[in-house]
Amino acid sequence: MECNVPTDIVFSFAGLSARGGKCGPHADGWGLALYEGRVARLFLDPMPAASSPLARFVREHPIKTLLAIAHVRKKTRGEVSLSNTHPFVRELWGRHMVFAHNGTVKGVRRHKLGHFRPVGQTDSEHAFCALLAALQHDFPAGPRSSAAFAEAVAGHAGRIGRNGTFNMLLGDGHQLFARCATKLCFIVRQAPFKKATLCDEDLCVDFAEVTTPNDRVAVVATAPLTRDETWTHGEPGTLWVFRRGKLARTLPSA
Amino acid sequence: MECNVPTDIVFSFAGLSARGGKCGPHADGWGLALYEGRVARLFLDPMPAASSPLARFVREHPIKTLLAIAHVRKKTRGEVSLSNTHPFVRELWGRHMVFAHNGTVKGVRRHKLGHFRPVGQTDSEHAFCALLAALQHDFPAGPRSSAAFAEAVAGHAGRIGRNGTFNMLLGDGHQLFARCATKLCFIVRQAPFKKATLCDEDLCVDFAEVTTPNDRVAVVATAPLTRDETWTHGEPGTLWVFRRGKLARTLPSA
Repeated sequence: MECNVPTDIVFSFAGLSARGGKCGPHADGWGLALYEGRVARLFLDPMPAASSPLARFVREHPIKTLLAIAHVRKKTRGEVSLSNTHPFVRELWGRHMVFAHNGTVKGVRRHKLGHFRPVGQTDSEHAFCALLAALQHDFPAGPRSSAAFAEAVAGHAGRIGRNGTFNMLLGDGHQLFARCATKLCFIVRQAPFKKATLCDEDLCVDFAEVTTPNDRVAVVATAPLTRDETWTHGEPGTLWVFRRGKLARTLPSA
Repeated sequence: MECNVPTDIVFSFAGLSARGGKCGPHADGWGLALYEGRVARLFLDPMPAASSPLARFVREHPIKTLLAIAHVRKKTRGEVSLSNTHPFVRELWGRHMVFAHNGTVKGVRRHKLGHFRPVGQTDSEHAFCALLAALQHDFPAGPRSSAAFAEAVAGHAGRIGRNGTFNMLLGDGHQLFARCATKLCFIVRQAPFKKATLCDEDLCVDFAEVTTPNDRVAVVATAPLTRDETWTHGEPGTLWVFRRGKLARTLPSA
């Protein structure tokens, strides 16, 4: 979720949580990163999101943020453990970078890691370290422009994801990059706001009641979270860039 | 807290929380890092620990761990914000390093930071980055021995803390380093276990009821957390190393 005004993610997180062991098989841990400026607050639990007391705490204590990245895991590589739970967070250029991945990347160990070492066993964290190392190599003191940054993310994500499936989200506190390898979709909610009903939970919200006319909220997910809104599906091999609650750019990332 | 068997930190954390705005002035945020192997789970909140719903959640949902580092902040440098809330966590050598600091370090900006950039504004996080950079410089692929690692921490902490007050805790998941600049104390609880009563809360626990005879738990704090146990006070300019629930070494760190 990437927004132009601080927004809580409780509605979308409720839908995602249900897929973590209740309405979906992604029961091997969950995580939620909520940015506050350049720093992300991270909630992680190797338990299924649908039954995790910490996930319930997060749903019951909404925290407003401009950018949040959540993940429910269905393991492919690496055991169920805290160290293998997404999203992953690392510092680059004096800010937190947050990363989550859907799919499996093959041959990930041939990529250079620079100064970043994986802590867990997943291909995902390895790919994240490779992506950060490439970005640090390209821009040692930070990106020279938003455009150059986005093009570098698109290029490196395409290269790292060439073998395997690399649907991924990368945030820096200011923008959200979303790469589609096989499946990714998004919606932008803005005035006039309507009601929306989750696909996975019997939960409906009337966004008109909880927003102001200038609010804009982009939500990206591997599969639509609501059943009565029109989601835009991604083209495989492309990268979306979201800023201030809207789609700012679409780049090739193959 | 550093132990030889997984232990929950609820009792000590309850006492520490009380100092975060109820029985003490350290009301500018709190944090708790709980290791699971090489990775630390981090709970952070810029609210006073005594009134934070997340701190209450942590007290009510004990998580067992071999190593935990908790902190309540009384700000000296840097505003009250998530980015300035201790403990700080960074990856080094493929594991999480966790750091918390009591005091103020002067002239911290003259130290080299290597590849580590502070995200917040505190002298503390800056000192942590300088310490990690020095350790990475000394041991690019990881420390060659536990002894060399401890000596490096003692040396660099002494150098960084020479001007100002640098009471600090550093954990790597396997051991806890504790440097005394002005005040630091510890206790090792082991058989025969007794009752203990918190200084700051009307809370008493009989450790004999919740332990087995082989358990050993070291607790380090700036001031004793209990009123009916005998705490050992640190010598300024020394570093303690705790492993498997006991004091393994004491080194000069001036």
